[in-house]
Amino acid sequence: MAQVTLNNNEVDIVIGALHSDLKSFLNEWKPIFSRFHLIIVKDPDLKEELQIPQGFSVAVYSKSDIERVVGSSSAGLFSGYACRYFGFLVSRKKYVVCVDDDCVPAKDNAGNIVDPVAQHIVNLKTPATPFFFNTLYDPFRKGADFVRGYPFSLRTGVDCALSCGLWLNLADLDAPTQALKPQQRNSRYVDAVLTVPVRSMMPVSGINIAFNREAIGPALVPALKLSGEGKFRWETVEDIWSGMCVKVICDHLALGVKSGLPYVWRTERGNPVESLKKEWEGVKLMEEVVPFFQSVRFSQLATTAEACVLEMAKTVKEQLGKVDPMFSRAAEAMEEWVKLWKSVGSS
Amino acid sequence: MAQVTLNNNEVDIVIGALHSDLKSFLNEWKPIFSRFHLIIVKDPDLKEELQIPQGFSVAVYSKSDIERVVGSSSAGLFSGYACRYFGFLVSRKKYVVCVDDDCVPAKDNAGNIVDPVAQHIVNLKTPATPFFFNTLYDPFRKGADFVRGYPFSLRTGVDCALSCGLWLNLADLDAPTQALKPQQRNSRYVDAVLTVPVRSMMPVSGINIAFNREAIGPALVPALKLSGEGKFRWETVEDIWSGMCVKVICDHLALGVKSGLPYVWRTERGNPVESLKKEWEGVKLMEEVVPFFQSVRFSQLATTAEACVLEMAKTVKEQLGKVDPMFSRAAEAMEEWVKLWKSVGSS
Repeated sequence: MAQVTLNNNEVDIVIGALHSDLKSFLNEWKPIFSRFHLIIVKDPDLKEELQIPQGFSVAVYSKSDIERVVGSSSAGLFSGYACRYFGFLVSRKKYVVCVDDDCVPAKDNAGNIVDPVAQHIVNLKTPATPFFFNTLYDPFRKGADFVRGYPFSLRTGVDCALSCGLWLNLADLDAPTQALKPQQRNSRYVDAVLTVPVRSMMPVSGINIAFNREAIGPALVPALKLSGEGKFRWETVEDIWSGMCVKVICDHLALGVKSGLPYVWRTERGNPVESLKKEWEGVKLMEEVVPFFQSVRFSQLATTAEACVLEMAKTVKEQLGKVDPMFSRAAEAMEEWVKLWKSVGSS
Repeated sequence: MAQVTLNNNEVDIVIGALHSDLKSFLNEWKPIFSRFHLIIVKDPDLKEELQIPQGFSVAVYSKSDIERVVGSSSAGLFSGYACRYFGFLVSRKKYVVCVDDDCVPAKDNAGNIVDPVAQHIVNLKTPATPFFFNTLYDPFRKGADFVRGYPFSLRTGVDCALSCGLWLNLADLDAPTQALKPQQRNSRYVDAVLTVPVRSMMPVSGINIAFNREAIGPALVPALKLSGEGKFRWETVEDIWSGMCVKVICDHLALGVKSGLPYVWRTERGNPVESLKKEWEGVKLMEEVVPFFQSVRFSQLATTAEACVLEMAKTVKEQLGKVDPMFSRAAEAMEEWVKLWKSVGSS
């Protein structure tokens, strides 16, 4: 059913560089990434020179570039994993694909290398169906369709704005789970894509995602920063917060979010037990954050992602600000981000 | 993670016999079904004697048994595919597994025969997670878990009341789709089970399902009958209506509904183009039915499946009765069904 053309000029691949040596990472991805333009944003805290192999069309941004573009007062938004948001800001393409620098290509059940860019773009270019659940998974996939009983009036679907891919080997677990099950590996390749239903909340992981930048770029906000945040995914919640923002904004704007294929292979290591010694704030925060996002509503005036983010920042300040000052800072970061998007991101 | 014991005495397998010759059907299922008690309900319109092979613990109910148990005025509820609801009524087990008589065992990706009873019972005995979407699919499956960012307060989940399996070979499509794509076969085995999120509606197919009879038995109602209804799935909507009832009742009672594994192999044939010549009412009805179910709410007094069905019957009569007399009849059937369940079903 799905006949999608993949136009190189529509896609930027954004990579937040948390490791200086990108040689083996990029060489692994060369067969897939080399036809696209790459935006590599170096974590401002990373001291060493980036090592990037030949053969890519690439723009590299370091701390000085970030400060030059957004000013030194705003540069703080882009530290650690959040450096990649700078790439979202300076991209000028319709679609952005973003993969963490500790992932390599995965193989499907037949042993074929998975091209996550192609799959993400198929996910984004084919409709999403958030208003009714299709038990046959993605109805727009070849060989699939809508199941009996699916309302015909809902079969055209809506535009898909966000595609969340998955991970083989190391799944994206939190520090306590990772510490409890250090040997656990995800080896199950689930050959499916599905639309996450409207009003259903989900934890979006930033490890392997793609989005329609024109439709919801400003909704991917680098906002929530933990004070004890470190250099492993399980020590951060920036993408979880941003994902909840995107999901409720997509729900409001009648846009779709998909989850499932494509997979990447995650090689990240690290010591989750060490992470547990820090005060792991993320766990506690989620208990406040989830009911908030489940109840947040936008006015009819909020017809763009920017407007939604600004309305949400206001509500965050009012409702969550009193719970923890971290939320007030997140709200301020959201307002700052929209300002940046208007001056830098949408030119 | 999931350690589930399958107790033969907890499970009834209910089969609605729409074909008289059940020999090859039951022989195919023998390795799986023979350890359980079978309830076979013969379609009252079927004239020929049922042919059932040796080697099963089986109770067979025909038209005269149905009339004896529920009275001849109520026997009309159980014609065609709806005959299996009589089996739900007379079962005394905690779990009911129900498979159409044109299905045989499927094979998984590794070529192993799938045991749908075992998988359905695992689905029913492990918690469901309707209040937050887990991108790693069923978190209670071995090797799986909750993804980073999943709120800890929601990780215990809720009881699962309904498990909806899927189909290889012939997917459960409607007549127009089937007529449009006569060659289409479903060959993709998606190795996943997921909870359908709260407030997300879905078309439940009765071909391959299992449920906790104690928890929501009365909510599976034989209610909506099309006037031009025939002997093929695509000509009926009884299970679609019933499925929407169950889903909204589960949402209200904080019970879960899962979709995905197990698969069965569907061999049904028939002529969908012939079906299209009938006035295919199902397509039109869904457009009225879906907004209704999306908006239906129960009072706080409705704390059982029976009470929910009765409240819903009242709302159906009030809101949909004026659209089509078929809905008023469905509402009456729902009331009749609850009466039967109280006198026959719950003894």
